[in-house]
Amino acid sequence: MSRADEPRSEPAYAARAAALLRAAANDLKRNDAAAEADLGLPPGAFDDYTSGRLPITWDLIGRAARVWPLNERDLLPVHDDTEHGLHMMRAKESEASSRIIERGGRPYYEYRDTAMSRLASYRPEWIKMLRVVENDDPHNAAVNWNKGHLLYQFTYFVGPVNYYFRSGDRSYCVEMSTGDSVWGLPFAPHSFAARSDTEPAYILALTYGGRLTGDVQRELSAVGRAATGSLALPLGDHGTLLRSVMEGRLMTVQDLADRSGLAADRVAALCVAPDRAEWSELELLADALGVSVRELIAPHTTTEADVRIQKGSTASRWSYPGQGSPSYRFTQLASDPIHPHTTSLEVEVQTPQPGAALPGTHQHQYLYVLGDEPLSVRWEHKGEQFDGWLEAGDSAYVTPGIELSFSADRPARLLMLRISGSATPDVRFALGAMRDGGIDRYVAEDRLWY
Amino acid sequence: MSRADEPRSEPAYAARAAALLRAAANDLKRNDAAAEADLGLPPGAFDDYTSGRLPITWDLIGRAARVWPLNERDLLPVHDDTEHGLHMMRAKESEASSRIIERGGRPYYEYRDTAMSRLASYRPEWIKMLRVVENDDPHNAAVNWNKGHLLYQFTYFVGPVNYYFRSGDRSYCVEMSTGDSVWGLPFAPHSFAARSDTEPAYILALTYGGRLTGDVQRELSAVGRAATGSLALPLGDHGTLLRSVMEGRLMTVQDLADRSGLAADRVAALCVAPDRAEWSELELLADALGVSVRELIAPHTTTEADVRIQKGSTASRWSYPGQGSPSYRFTQLASDPIHPHTTSLEVEVQTPQPGAALPGTHQHQYLYVLGDEPLSVRWEHKGEQFDGWLEAGDSAYVTPGIELSFSADRPARLLMLRISGSATPDVRFALGAMRDGGIDRYVAEDRLWY
Repeated sequence: MSRADEPRSEPAYAARAAALLRAAANDLKRNDAAAEADLGLPPGAFDDYTSGRLPITWDLIGRAARVWPLNERDLLPVHDDTEHGLHMMRAKESEASSRIIERGGRPYYEYRDTAMSRLASYRPEWIKMLRVVENDDPHNAAVNWNKGHLLYQFTYFVGPVNYYFRSGDRSYCVEMSTGDSVWGLPFAPHSFAARSDTEPAYILALTYGGRLTGDVQRELSAVGRAATGSLALPLGDHGTLLRSVMEGRLMTVQDLADRSGLAADRVAALCVAPDRAEWSELELLADALGVSVRELIAPHTTTEADVRIQKGSTASRWSYPGQGSPSYRFTQLASDPIHPHTTSLEVEVQTPQPGAALPGTHQHQYLYVLGDEPLSVRWEHKGEQFDGWLEAGDSAYVTPGIELSFSADRPARLLMLRISGSATPDVRFALGAMRDGGIDRYVAEDRLWY
Repeated sequence: MSRADEPRSEPAYAARAAALLRAAANDLKRNDAAAEADLGLPPGAFDDYTSGRLPITWDLIGRAARVWPLNERDLLPVHDDTEHGLHMMRAKESEASSRIIERGGRPYYEYRDTAMSRLASYRPEWIKMLRVVENDDPHNAAVNWNKGHLLYQFTYFVGPVNYYFRSGDRSYCVEMSTGDSVWGLPFAPHSFAARSDTEPAYILALTYGGRLTGDVQRELSAVGRAATGSLALPLGDHGTLLRSVMEGRLMTVQDLADRSGLAADRVAALCVAPDRAEWSELELLADALGVSVRELIAPHTTTEADVRIQKGSTASRWSYPGQGSPSYRFTQLASDPIHPHTTSLEVEVQTPQPGAALPGTHQHQYLYVLGDEPLSVRWEHKGEQFDGWLEAGDSAYVTPGIELSFSADRPARLLMLRISGSATPDVRFALGAMRDGGIDRYVAEDRLWY
């Protein structure tokens, strides 16, 4: 392998890097002359970099991170490795990534990568269980556990697979079958084993970072363990959330009582109780704090022992777009309210012609073909229409905002996992508040701020 | 300047970079042997890197970004440039950063940097108005406008300063005086001028990125302008938000009606009206969608023409921690509900002994000494207590989680701006859901996942 001398520089990436440098100087209120003085560049060079005539180099990034209060990563964009918004991985490519993981000196899993992209935090693996067990004892010595990992894990089961999970000092084993699914919290130890050495027994282990990776991890890692621990909020605890908002605004119980019209006793009680205030009280409190009511509502979880299990047999099913002539039939898989932007579905494609377009979503999407039937996919990207197909074991990643429609000669089945990217609701409302032209400059700053 | 051959590598930064490499391999389910094969490293080298025995180099980062589905920036931590959680900038250092910005061929502003840190998106400047005007005509030809910038801007006024702002095709001029403040949206063109050539006339222009910079900008910049535009949500519009959640979950009006018990007509009407549903309806809808009620509440803004002006004369004032023997007196400055984690205050320090400790907050903090009186600051960091002082024109940045207390021989005044970092409520609840030891591994992954 050649030495990786400079950042990869496909043209669109290079243009985004140039725009980032311009935006960084704007943020610091440096015009070209000031930036050149700071960075030790000759006159005219800054314009050469920000206009894309000169490539952004490691050297330049290193200089900027030394003299300006920013980090190397602040000048680096991300790569778009999709083709027209989709990135497909064929079953054959997945097979080529096969690797055996041993546990206790013997083969335990076969791992295969499926479609991943530099644009999203998905780390989806096809994993075959190589260890066969004969019972559902969670303490079975033949079962080797992992230590858990940072990523959230949505798992879809195919065949007779035992799912082992541990919460605190209790261990569990649940017998899973095709169509069952589970959603699990980070750092929860778990394992899997086959109940049969003849039937296929594997899982689709779709791990993803959620909001915990990226900038957040970098920032909290730098401020350290104690400060990070102090930021944690308990799920479902409205009182702690209210107190945190009050502390953020340095408002006292008495002052909030005066402003909201609630009794000081009542405000004090709400600060220490997990229960939600009456809606009418929340409206008064939010108004007095100068925030939206949404900021005072704590999310809850439906996980038990750190996981949420959804058996296929009891899953909700519905037709889309409607009962009349449905294009698709959806089965709802495991999810949890603390990830409101995660959608996991089994999709049965019931139409031989391109079916109803699924509306563009803010979510990233991951697709994996279940079963043996192939299907066609049609999508729009930047005003152009594209067609492709997916066969058994193929997978795909799809960027936000893309409308998809599927078709299949015979009913075909697809696993779909949608997750939130960085564009959370507060970001989306911030975009909505931008004036005309703001979004153009936001995605690619092309000018001096004055 | 020497060539910036490798990433800066103070020891803590190097350790965080090593942990990131381990976490990246874990996410991709690569053990050391698989990682070495992928990266073209000799046996044992991966452990050398992830244990910190070898420094992470640009070459290694470049290799990883080529063969793994991640970006160069995904392997780069951020620098902690504070001393024990604080970074101070003295008035003299600010003066040394002075630069004159010309407009229309003549001096218009004097800019000086104040305290900034690589840990936060603050870009706070002290700016003196060099152009003097004689009226409040927003179309005054002597006034040179900027084009607006991506950052949010909180501005605190000192002396007779005219504030000019434009929204759509309307221009405004408001006469500001000491203690007045304004909060403004990104990309809103604005300007400032002095109403006197004898009195001091300057502003503290505290720009910050909010949630729009960092990962979000990188991701949306890569997916492009059209997709980014499609993600925007209008402020205060509950119907559009409900529809977006439904689309994310691919739920139809009929299906949501069936699940929630609401009439299909009512669900359809709620999808197209900006008004909020009744609270009882929202509870049913949230339950049926499998999300918390907070996900169905749209925030609102109190800005008019893209800005929120707060005159000092009508600002709320309160004592802290209480009326009895207050340590501080707060004056609330301009803010808006769409940034619920931004707190802007004028702080009068009224105690000659270290006053009540302000509780640690999830927010980053910025401080600037207003007026001539110096003050002392005491803080705790990782269990140790520190003392410092701030004089006229000094400024400071403070990391999240730090408890601060102030004292001053004579009443001293401080401008305080607290902003959210990456640790938004969803992140904080995710931290709250982590099991013992999870946070330790989150901030510094130190082991293989299995």
